[in-house]
Amino acid sequence: MTSLSTDSHAPASAPERPFEFRVRDLALAEAGRHQLRLAEHEMPGLMALRAEFEDARPLAGARIAGSLHMTVQTAVLIETLVALGAQVRWASCNIFSTQDEAAAAVVVGPNGTPEHPEGVPVFAWKGESLEEYWWCTSRVFDWSAEAAEAGADFTGPNQILDDGGDATLLVHLGAQFEADGRVPDATAGDSHEYRVILDLLRASLVESSDRWTRVAGGIVGVTEETTTGAHRLYELERDGKLRFTAINVNDSVTKSKFDNKYGIRHSLVDGLNRATDVLIGGKVAFVAGYGDVGKGAAEALRGQGARVIVSEIDPINALQAAMDGFQVSRLESVIGEVDILITGTGNKDVVRLEHILGLKHLAIVANVGHFDNEIDMAALESLEGAERVEIKPQVHEWRLPNGRNVLVLSEGRLMNLGNATGHPSFVMSNSFTNQVLGQLELHVNLAAYPLGVYTLPKVLDEKVARLHLDALGVELTTLTPEQADYIGVPVDGPYKSDQYRY
Amino acid sequence: MTSLSTDSHAPASAPERPFEFRVRDLALAEAGRHQLRLAEHEMPGLMALRAEFEDARPLAGARIAGSLHMTVQTAVLIETLVALGAQVRWASCNIFSTQDEAAAAVVVGPNGTPEHPEGVPVFAWKGESLEEYWWCTSRVFDWSAEAAEAGADFTGPNQILDDGGDATLLVHLGAQFEADGRVPDATAGDSHEYRVILDLLRASLVESSDRWTRVAGGIVGVTEETTTGAHRLYELERDGKLRFTAINVNDSVTKSKFDNKYGIRHSLVDGLNRATDVLIGGKVAFVAGYGDVGKGAAEALRGQGARVIVSEIDPINALQAAMDGFQVSRLESVIGEVDILITGTGNKDVVRLEHILGLKHLAIVANVGHFDNEIDMAALESLEGAERVEIKPQVHEWRLPNGRNVLVLSEGRLMNLGNATGHPSFVMSNSFTNQVLGQLELHVNLAAYPLGVYTLPKVLDEKVARLHLDALGVELTTLTPEQADYIGVPVDGPYKSDQYRY
Amino acid sequence: MTSLSTDSHAPASAPERPFEFRVRDLALAEAGRHQLRLAEHEMPGLMALRAEFEDARPLAGARIAGSLHMTVQTAVLIETLVALGAQVRWASCNIFSTQDEAAAAVVVGPNGTPEHPEGVPVFAWKGESLEEYWWCTSRVFDWSAEAAEAGADFTGPNQILDDGGDATLLVHLGAQFEADGRVPDATAGDSHEYRVILDLLRASLVESSDRWTRVAGGIVGVTEETTTGAHRLYELERDGKLRFTAINVNDSVTKSKFDNKYGIRHSLVDGLNRATDVLIGGKVAFVAGYGDVGKGAAEALRGQGARVIVSEIDPINALQAAMDGFQVSRLESVIGEVDILITGTGNKDVVRLEHILGLKHLAIVANVGHFDNEIDMAALESLEGAERVEIKPQVHEWRLPNGRNVLVLSEGRLMNLGNATGHPSFVMSNSFTNQVLGQLELHVNLAAYPLGVYTLPKVLDEKVARLHLDALGVELTTLTPEQADYIGVPVDGPYKSDQYRY
Amino acid sequence: MTSLSTDSHAPASAPERPFEFRVRDLALAEAGRHQLRLAEHEMPGLMALRAEFEDARPLAGARIAGSLHMTVQTAVLIETLVALGAQVRWASCNIFSTQDEAAAAVVVGPNGTPEHPEGVPVFAWKGESLEEYWWCTSRVFDWSAEAAEAGADFTGPNQILDDGGDATLLVHLGAQFEADGRVPDATAGDSHEYRVILDLLRASLVESSDRWTRVAGGIVGVTEETTTGAHRLYELERDGKLRFTAINVNDSVTKSKFDNKYGIRHSLVDGLNRATDVLIGGKVAFVAGYGDVGKGAAEALRGQGARVIVSEIDPINALQAAMDGFQVSRLESVIGEVDILITGTGNKDVVRLEHILGLKHLAIVANVGHFDNEIDMAALESLEGAERVEIKPQVHEWRLPNGRNVLVLSEGRLMNLGNATGHPSFVMSNSFTNQVLGQLELHVNLAAYPLGVYTLPKVLDEKVARLHLDALGVELTTLTPEQADYIGVPVDGPYKSDQYRY
Repeated sequence: MTSLSTDSHAPASAPERPFEFRVRDLALAEAGRHQLRLAEHEMPGLMALRAEFEDARPLAGARIAGSLHMTVQTAVLIETLVALGAQVRWASCNIFSTQDEAAAAVVVGPNGTPEHPEGVPVFAWKGESLEEYWWCTSRVFDWSAEAAEAGADFTGPNQILDDGGDATLLVHLGAQFEADGRVPDATAGDSHEYRVILDLLRASLVESSDRWTRVAGGIVGVTEETTTGAHRLYELERDGKLRFTAINVNDSVTKSKFDNKYGIRHSLVDGLNRATDVLIGGKVAFVAGYGDVGKGAAEALRGQGARVIVSEIDPINALQAAMDGFQVSRLESVIGEVDILITGTGNKDVVRLEHILGLKHLAIVANVGHFDNEIDMAALESLEGAERVEIKPQVHEWRLPNGRNVLVLSEGRLMNLGNATGHPSFVMSNSFTNQVLGQLELHVNLAAYPLGVYTLPKVLDEKVARLHLDALGVELTTLTPEQADYIGVPVDGPYKSDQYRY
Repeated sequence: MTSLSTDSHAPASAPERPFEFRVRDLALAEAGRHQLRLAEHEMPGLMALRAEFEDARPLAGARIAGSLHMTVQTAVLIETLVALGAQVRWASCNIFSTQDEAAAAVVVGPNGTPEHPEGVPVFAWKGESLEEYWWCTSRVFDWSAEAAEAGADFTGPNQILDDGGDATLLVHLGAQFEADGRVPDATAGDSHEYRVILDLLRASLVESSDRWTRVAGGIVGVTEETTTGAHRLYELERDGKLRFTAINVNDSVTKSKFDNKYGIRHSLVDGLNRATDVLIGGKVAFVAGYGDVGKGAAEALRGQGARVIVSEIDPINALQAAMDGFQVSRLESVIGEVDILITGTGNKDVVRLEHILGLKHLAIVANVGHFDNEIDMAALESLEGAERVEIKPQVHEWRLPNGRNVLVLSEGRLMNLGNATGHPSFVMSNSFTNQVLGQLELHVNLAAYPLGVYTLPKVLDEKVARLHLDALGVELTTLTPEQADYIGVPVDGPYKSDQYRY
Repeated sequence: MTSLSTDSHAPASAPERPFEFRVRDLALAEAGRHQLRLAEHEMPGLMALRAEFEDARPLAGARIAGSLHMTVQTAVLIETLVALGAQVRWASCNIFSTQDEAAAAVVVGPNGTPEHPEGVPVFAWKGESLEEYWWCTSRVFDWSAEAAEAGADFTGPNQILDDGGDATLLVHLGAQFEADGRVPDATAGDSHEYRVILDLLRASLVESSDRWTRVAGGIVGVTEETTTGAHRLYELERDGKLRFTAINVNDSVTKSKFDNKYGIRHSLVDGLNRATDVLIGGKVAFVAGYGDVGKGAAEALRGQGARVIVSEIDPINALQAAMDGFQVSRLESVIGEVDILITGTGNKDVVRLEHILGLKHLAIVANVGHFDNEIDMAALESLEGAERVEIKPQVHEWRLPNGRNVLVLSEGRLMNLGNATGHPSFVMSNSFTNQVLGQLELHVNLAAYPLGVYTLPKVLDEKVARLHLDALGVELTTLTPEQADYIGVPVDGPYKSDQYRY
Repeated sequence: MTSLSTDSHAPASAPERPFEFRVRDLALAEAGRHQLRLAEHEMPGLMALRAEFEDARPLAGARIAGSLHMTVQTAVLIETLVALGAQVRWASCNIFSTQDEAAAAVVVGPNGTPEHPEGVPVFAWKGESLEEYWWCTSRVFDWSAEAAEAGADFTGPNQILDDGGDATLLVHLGAQFEADGRVPDATAGDSHEYRVILDLLRASLVESSDRWTRVAGGIVGVTEETTTGAHRLYELERDGKLRFTAINVNDSVTKSKFDNKYGIRHSLVDGLNRATDVLIGGKVAFVAGYGDVGKGAAEALRGQGARVIVSEIDPINALQAAMDGFQVSRLESVIGEVDILITGTGNKDVVRLEHILGLKHLAIVANVGHFDNEIDMAALESLEGAERVEIKPQVHEWRLPNGRNVLVLSEGRLMNLGNATGHPSFVMSNSFTNQVLGQLELHVNLAAYPLGVYTLPKVLDEKVARLHLDALGVELTTLTPEQADYIGVPVDGPYKSDQYRY
């Protein structure tokens, strides 16, 4: 089942059969399997879905192309999809985030061996080039082997599970260029990455004039993990270009509130410790942004005894921060007092060069928001007289021309990924249970979702939460029919309007 | 301007000219003025609106009928409406909640004297009967004196400011009965209060066949303060019975999140202390419900050193409680450990007789949720062998037949009102600034609100927050145009989608 | 037993038989008895001692002269002493702190009636003059009625229970003057209060040349409640003037740590709320001093959502405050940001006029430290152009010549007493259980305490804590003999060295 | 200066010249130097002492034998001693704790090169055998090279800086056996380690009959870092066997309160994260012991959103835990609910086999108290049917015969060392500043410390705190002379009595 077909358009640098060597690496696959077992315990939502659906296998017939960080937690997600009956092919959505042992374990499968893998084809390894990355992404749409095995004539998947929207983007671009009959030339302003995509689709167009059109036509829907990906989907919908139904998993309460607030609360402290071993207690920490990420960050730092100052551009969130007892100041007003500077805004240029130059000697700068442009790394990198010294991977001391040094974590990228290990399994279990429920909706309840972008119904959001209560020893109170009637909700939910803010 | 006309249908028990004696009570009015001055300092949102609009007087021409607890904070609201140009008549929305000194100060007005009052006609006193209550409510719709003085022919107000929907209800019922040509007889199941309303409207119908129809016809909109009132409005809209535009102030973030969470965090501890003087530290406190009210209650109790156990029926909120470090249990599972039992659910029968009988000796039971049926007081009151001893007003010791006693605060009604002093001024300043902005929208921007129920636009919600930042020393960060563009929002907001959960 | 003898030296203003009228006030005594019953529930340490010793009555033969605030909690203490077999006479240690209903209840006794009181002679009422105060204090040393009833020849008590050391002072001064043969004339620098004492002792010396000498000779020891009183005792010991053994109850862990930290945590918030109803959340609160009082204050304010800034003179406590996440600044550095200014230092002139003049308009100033000179009230009172307006009792608005006003609570005296109700019963139960154990040590174990000042042995301190655990549902873990041996302590304690800091 | 003399009694397994190869390892020494530079920034107390004393060099003439974990922080300590004028030789006090790069950097010295080391002789490497360990310890007492170079006739050091008392023990045993004229044979009950010591001293006795007697005679004092070491010293003093003055650094407030509470608060969370990546939020964590270690642990876990249950054997600490809002239960009462089980007691057998067998599947067990016998690892290791699987170093999954598994960190030893990186530099700066001040007292103020065991005077404890304030931006308030007089302390401290509990 897992014959890993090669591809004539693979970048020269790509391993010819990327997992050939890995799945033969017994230790790697075994280490991965070990970690999966521990992670499964911390992902009760996924395991509950397996228990609920393992007999019915409601995803039988679903062919899922996945593009999401190939980590241990994702491995538990993939094996849950398989346990529910789906066929799956997988790539990562980031060139650095693959945990090779997790990939190996998934390829081998729970009952396979490196010699006789029975798992899922995975196209991902830690440290891909951009050419490799997009080649890997394209591979999850090539279901020729599966079609041949099944004696069927499909070209690609019928569902996408996406993170950041790259898989969805590739299908949409490919089909559009085929409709146009040509792939446009790159223009001066195009990024290197976009040129890579154009090259890949140009080569595809040479080989087939309708490959991506057929792929797009076979897909009934996508479930999307992130804010960024959801944003792209809403734009496609607005512009009338959306080719299949999309479920925005990101805005489930059990995704956004849990990933952002509780995930960051955990991993910010973890990343600071692993990166610097600096005592957080007693320090002055500045948190830019008091959304869910900032709330989690501020709570974590206070919980370690730091004095936390917050900045906000939204007066409502600013007032919340004040009501929660935090000083709310502009960064420039307090920059000279700050020991630990954290950004969690989702905006760019939040920490600018003038801020960095105003910091105390050996202050720490780190980002848990979004892209690395939250900190103006470009300006720092081009600052005359500044010198960058690697203390250890992902920890750099910048010696500034003013004689002071600052510690920059993960080169300004997400430090919870670069210096810690990302969101813990329990948090991801919430996200991924939403993903599986979204895939189920697409497969068994598609009629309820005509072309458009949807969030999951509240009752499924509540189900995700429900599946995580036992593991924490939480006893849920049950409404009596009279009480349910009194407040006008069903006994089993949903309990709140869509506007409810939690 | 404030000639307080009497009314032939006033209940016999009502003072003929309700404030005659009060406004002549110099001490009362002065005490109220004193409190207003202190409250103004804690209501920066309202004071900022006065400063912004005192010259333009954009509410000139607005005739506002208000029905909202006649407290010191409401007095600041009323005088803000007047400062913005409105004419106002006022009743309370609760028979107990009037602070007489506040009413007196409003009647006198900031520059009037008891002999020459220049303020607003107020129909409210502490401890009204239901007959008096509905008579007072009806009085805020009689603008004959104002019409006479203005040489105009209006009957009533053109806007309502409502809390709980009683004023809106009266207009809708009155107009409907006039359309029906009759007021129905009361039926067996009707409450005493509903009979009082029917009697009042029956008498009105005798006098005039179209009074309420004219009143309703003259009203362009209502702003509503509460969940309950908003719920009624959505039902009217759903049933096609809504007669004028409604703005649901309750669901502004700066209202619901602030009233409920930060208001209760303050007044729960205050009420417990004033009622019992019992040390909260070290005690086991149980909080039923982990919505905004429960979140505020749990935080306050933990902040005083109590061990807090939470119950929830909604798995998402239950998971939030667990993630915030609280034990989440059903009340019956832990009842024997509970020292302080707080309900904050908005549902009924949350604390039932079996719970009360299971409590420790001298445990405290109190409600910060909604109606007094959160605790099944009826069952307690009819429990054979139970005896009620008043310790002091609003604090009763119930001697149970099992030999244990429990302390019940405010007879099961809202203890933050009964044992404390309700929401502090700063919290109410948020709510009331929303109210004023809602009144402004109705008066100057009505075209944007065709018949229906609306929440205030996000940008106004943000404005409310913005007006409260300086008082707390909060520095707001300003987006650069590039940053605003990057995240796709205007520099001045609104910054978030309507779905954003804060 | 409770014939309340009159005294020819009573001030003219004193009621001849101070409680005659009160004990006949059935309502007052009943109200007091009611409150005692509720307080007993919150004073499990005292009630446990009653249960343990009510049969053995180990205080039989003890004649205790008490001088301690005559509150409901003290009433429970007094009746505990009686239950253990002691005879008791009582005065308050403060002219304002008596709760008359508590006094009445104690005089009547649990089984007496106003007509036939069977309780304890109490010489205390709310609002004594200084002449009355010292006369009352002197009355607790006149045991002639008890001696007559017993057919014995003692003059006074054999033990003192003291708070602040006034009772101990009177005996020492009286005996010294008798030894000198004269009472000195007052000098120019003597306070009014000292003159009152001199006058009282001068009159006594006229009547008897050895009354206080006999009283002092009959006393075997005193237990002292406060820092101030303990300080006086250590001075007497150092100077060789101590006349009987003293037990310093103040420095028991279960007294000082609990009174100061947990008592203030409770009553600071309570006092602020009752005095001002101002929302604490979001405000900037400044706490001067980070000893136990300051720690409790800072925790309470943070628990209500304030941003707390701390000042300290001791670098160790300052470092603790920083490690606990608080900003540590000098008052003058941040005075313009402060909304709520709290002193808890035990020093004088902590808040000076320049601070008060630097505060924001309507900032709140209050003291939970010690004397009213923590805030330089004298300077404020003599400030030209300042005006004091009473908002309500114990709450004054000072209108400053700079155009700003500040709210001063309790005239700069302890606001937890003046605006709240002092320490809650549960906290006092810890203190008073130490007192009873101290009285027991003096009566049954005096040989272990030769003349000197002692703290209670650690094992008794631990016992006090132990008696309060059940009420809070605390399960204590028991050492195995092997474990006790391993760490070198008895299974039943004491568990720590005297230097242990908790 | 750093000629590293070999020793004929070195264990065969020891490198002949232990640092020969290391100091030639340029990368190792450079990496160490890099870390020292960062650590210096977090050790402001030590750096302040360098600044204060670098000219006066008050430790000139001090020959210090150090035995303390050879970490980066210790390297900063050593170089501080050298900067103050001392000569130093160093060994680790633990076979595992040496950071080789720190040792290399110290040997090379700040200005030396691997070829021309100018630093301090260090006898320590990661992973010593017990034979190697005691040989290393003995080497810090051989000052023959230094004596030769100085043309002096001393044998050993004149001061010891000790951690755990091993260096002190070796001198006392050596001198005693020389006095006895023989080294006793090992008996059946003697540990392997004690046999190693006996063998080493037996060989020494063959070579010299008075070597240790001369060493002991040359030593004027020791400063001791730990509870255990201090305990041994008090026993030696009690038994009249103490041979030189000892300063107990452990009981300085700035050592014990900071190491234990704030160090553990930091490193417990760090260790859990690095070991398991399990989300702490929402979990049930059990902390055995509520001393300073337990207080720090409980605060850290609560700060990450765990629900924390505490156990205690001391009723005072138990009451503190309750007052701080924690559930206080016996472990066996709640064992089935516990996800994370932490011991911090200093006692043995706190977690027993029955507890481990009662845990939830994949619960985590870890020790931050003292020895590995806090958890009965011996019983677990001999449990029939239990299997131990290494997840990664210091993280083991124990598969229990009941079908459940538990994760044991650091094999039951201190997880803050084994899974995290021990106390952060800032915390150690407090401890080590005490050490340096202790060494200074011995060298320049010995007359104040006749033979006995002492804690540092309060004023030095306060100095340690004072030197750490600037780094945290703490402003200290200064007493006026009048205020100092009022509370009876010097303006510059000390401010508290020795009994004050902080």
